[in-house]
Amino acid sequence: MMAMDQIVDYINLHRDRYVEELKQYLSIPSISALPQHADDVRRAAEWTATAITEAGLENVRLLETPGNPVVYGEWLHAPGKPTILYYGHYDVQPVDPVNLWTSPPFEPTVRDGEIFARGAADDKGQVFMHIKAVEAFMKQQGRLPVNIKFFIEGEEEVGSMNLDAFVRSHQELLASDVVVISDSPMFDRGVPSICYGLRGLAYFQIDLRGTKSDLHSGSFGGAVANPAFVLANVLAAMKDRSGRIKIPGFYDDVRELTEEERAEWRKLPFNETRYRKELGAPKLFGESGYTTLERVWGRPTFEVNGLLSGFTGEGAKTVIPAVAMAKVSMRLVPAQDPDKIAAQFEAYLKKVCPKTVEVKVTRMQGGKAWMAEFDNKFVRAAGRAIEKGFGKTPVFNREGGSIPVVSTFQEALGVPSVLFGVGLPDENAHAPDEKLDLGNFHNGIIASAYLYDEIAGLT
Amino acid sequence: MMAMDQIVDYINLHRDRYVEELKQYLSIPSISALPQHADDVRRAAEWTATAITEAGLENVRLLETPGNPVVYGEWLHAPGKPTILYYGHYDVQPVDPVNLWTSPPFEPTVRDGEIFARGAADDKGQVFMHIKAVEAFMKQQGRLPVNIKFFIEGEEEVGSMNLDAFVRSHQELLASDVVVISDSPMFDRGVPSICYGLRGLAYFQIDLRGTKSDLHSGSFGGAVANPAFVLANVLAAMKDRSGRIKIPGFYDDVRELTEEERAEWRKLPFNETRYRKELGAPKLFGESGYTTLERVWGRPTFEVNGLLSGFTGEGAKTVIPAVAMAKVSMRLVPAQDPDKIAAQFEAYLKKVCPKTVEVKVTRMQGGKAWMAEFDNKFVRAAGRAIEKGFGKTPVFNREGGSIPVVSTFQEALGVPSVLFGVGLPDENAHAPDEKLDLGNFHNGIIASAYLYDEIAGLT
Repeated sequence: MMAMDQIVDYINLHRDRYVEELKQYLSIPSISALPQHADDVRRAAEWTATAITEAGLENVRLLETPGNPVVYGEWLHAPGKPTILYYGHYDVQPVDPVNLWTSPPFEPTVRDGEIFARGAADDKGQVFMHIKAVEAFMKQQGRLPVNIKFFIEGEEEVGSMNLDAFVRSHQELLASDVVVISDSPMFDRGVPSICYGLRGLAYFQIDLRGTKSDLHSGSFGGAVANPAFVLANVLAAMKDRSGRIKIPGFYDDVRELTEEERAEWRKLPFNETRYRKELGAPKLFGESGYTTLERVWGRPTFEVNGLLSGFTGEGAKTVIPAVAMAKVSMRLVPAQDPDKIAAQFEAYLKKVCPKTVEVKVTRMQGGKAWMAEFDNKFVRAAGRAIEKGFGKTPVFNREGGSIPVVSTFQEALGVPSVLFGVGLPDENAHAPDEKLDLGNFHNGIIASAYLYDEIAGLT
Repeated sequence: MMAMDQIVDYINLHRDRYVEELKQYLSIPSISALPQHADDVRRAAEWTATAITEAGLENVRLLETPGNPVVYGEWLHAPGKPTILYYGHYDVQPVDPVNLWTSPPFEPTVRDGEIFARGAADDKGQVFMHIKAVEAFMKQQGRLPVNIKFFIEGEEEVGSMNLDAFVRSHQELLASDVVVISDSPMFDRGVPSICYGLRGLAYFQIDLRGTKSDLHSGSFGGAVANPAFVLANVLAAMKDRSGRIKIPGFYDDVRELTEEERAEWRKLPFNETRYRKELGAPKLFGESGYTTLERVWGRPTFEVNGLLSGFTGEGAKTVIPAVAMAKVSMRLVPAQDPDKIAAQFEAYLKKVCPKTVEVKVTRMQGGKAWMAEFDNKFVRAAGRAIEKGFGKTPVFNREGGSIPVVSTFQEALGVPSVLFGVGLPDENAHAPDEKLDLGNFHNGIIASAYLYDEIAGLT
């Protein structure tokens, strides 16, 4: 215990420096979705490599993929102790609409104990938390209590499309006993949590073309199908009024929630009115017959992520658009298969889309849902670490988001994952004003250090 | 006849110079819909004023409105002869998507006997045609055969919102016997025409808001209504599968086409297959029970002119958009009233839009449909002028587009309009690669000169 007190003292002492260093990391616009940021993405990879080297990891290197490089580093001098594979990502989401940010997304700014920047919570802030936990051990004790491998990728925000092949072709390098991931929010402010389930994802772009070019809506209106209107019809056909998805076969493999799990979730400190007000929604809405938490954690969705067609500037332009585009995605639950869902979606889309337009579907991302075994020893060790770092017993929750690599680790390496996230539900992960609470960042570094210590004690 | 031969010789002699001058006019990006082009709009007004002064008109001036100025000029030295009020507009449509233009929209370029530029057909090219007809008379004879007033506005492409009040408050200045407008296409290449009917317009912007900011579609998907999906539903509710508009009361005031008019239209040289191929549409589509010409000339429409929501860049962003926007418009036929239609549309929209989103409707433009008396003497004079300019008897047609000011002239000045257009149906008036056939431009100048001569003969 003396040893851990020393670590915690070191972390407390360097609190402010960590924030300054984090600001540097967050100032790199490593947006993986936008080709014009390719150099920034690589710069973030190099910054990460330098940071883990300085923290004390060894054999640090960038491992190339067909896309953005993976940053790898290790410390393997604890024979007989478990090996942790720490996974995170250095790439970030796009920032538009950029005019809705209070401070520029890549000029990290602290307001009221929170740091605002793209990537603050998702995921650079949480990656940096683990880097600093490693640093504390290395500076204070010259060693770590466990073996550890850092594995930080640069394509999480574009669907980790190269990761599956990478993991499968580097099974020896990545061999480990447990994967630790800090890329999810805690249940609520002041309610630390361990996440034991994630939804999967199937993301598509739909492109419709009606005519070879935009037409004058007066001269031609009435004679041809309007692809923007056809798109509206096609999207409207995807769900009924009760929120149920109409794609044939979509629910075939959905594992229904058990009464036991639903009962557990009803005990959680969830305030629906406050939730609604924080989102600024006039009314909550979701699939009939399920609570809000059940809808978000345990049920699949169909969402429109983007729409673009015709004239969208100021004023009025009387045009029949030649083309219309939608980005749509489905969140999946156990045991839906993204490939099967993609086939069902594409078949249904082609069925509901009239022959008056040309339709093209592009598959963008896909990943399976994941659930941990509830009584896994690593999950329990993480619970104890969170309790020590935050001074509170964590709750156990599922998450509506997707981290497709969790399934890959399970399947390719046969290794369980522990989701150890310290973000907050209002962190704006994919929206303007993304932020990370600096108190949680600090407690998260301490909890990470305890996690390594707790896992060292498992053997 | 000797006199008119002289005029035609002059026009033939100066053919190439006219094109060079027109290029200057077309190079001014006078886009009235975009505030950043306000200076260009004024520059186009001044250019127009200079051009009509040089042609020989008098008392030329810019008349201010709450928006863009009206260019006015006159020649009133033909006592006992009719007075023509020539109406046109010097503003142009926006140019996006600008990457689809073969040559830049404000760098006028001649290819295969056609001049490509924004405004070539709609309407600068046709305005310039009348300016040059005036010039030919003034240079050759020092006078015009009729009295003429030029009235060129700068807000036609944004709905002429100040024109109605302007016309009503300048009835004396604008007093005349007939309005001549050249802002419509001829029936087909090689088929000159006189247009005797126009559709009206009601244009709206719909803004929906679901939440205060964009949300992560994983963390929140399932809990709230998605405004892009709600928008799709709301738009889909506007028309049934047969193309019929579902807004209650929408068809109440629609004057059904007569069997006689339908029979006349069936005689026109209209090739549906060629029409479809030129548009590049997989299939034509419109209201059941009507032919394509009937749908475009004689039936109302509901069109989506633009859609914007969420992430529309390259790649995938897993976001639930906070807001979703659509621009929509209806083309109206006699005797639908744009105000009544606006009230019906807004009421229906609010009825079909769920309480899960905030909805805002903005009315952007509105104008009544118009139809000429078929045996009007000015219409017949225009027919003879077209025949002399183009060497062919014109057909009589209606047009799907809208020139709201035509109804205003009828109501405020009690004056009939003659629509004397020389564009082509494939002129891309509101689309990339707008163009004007230079043969038609040249014949149009000659026909304009004959029109003045024919109207002079009417007394």
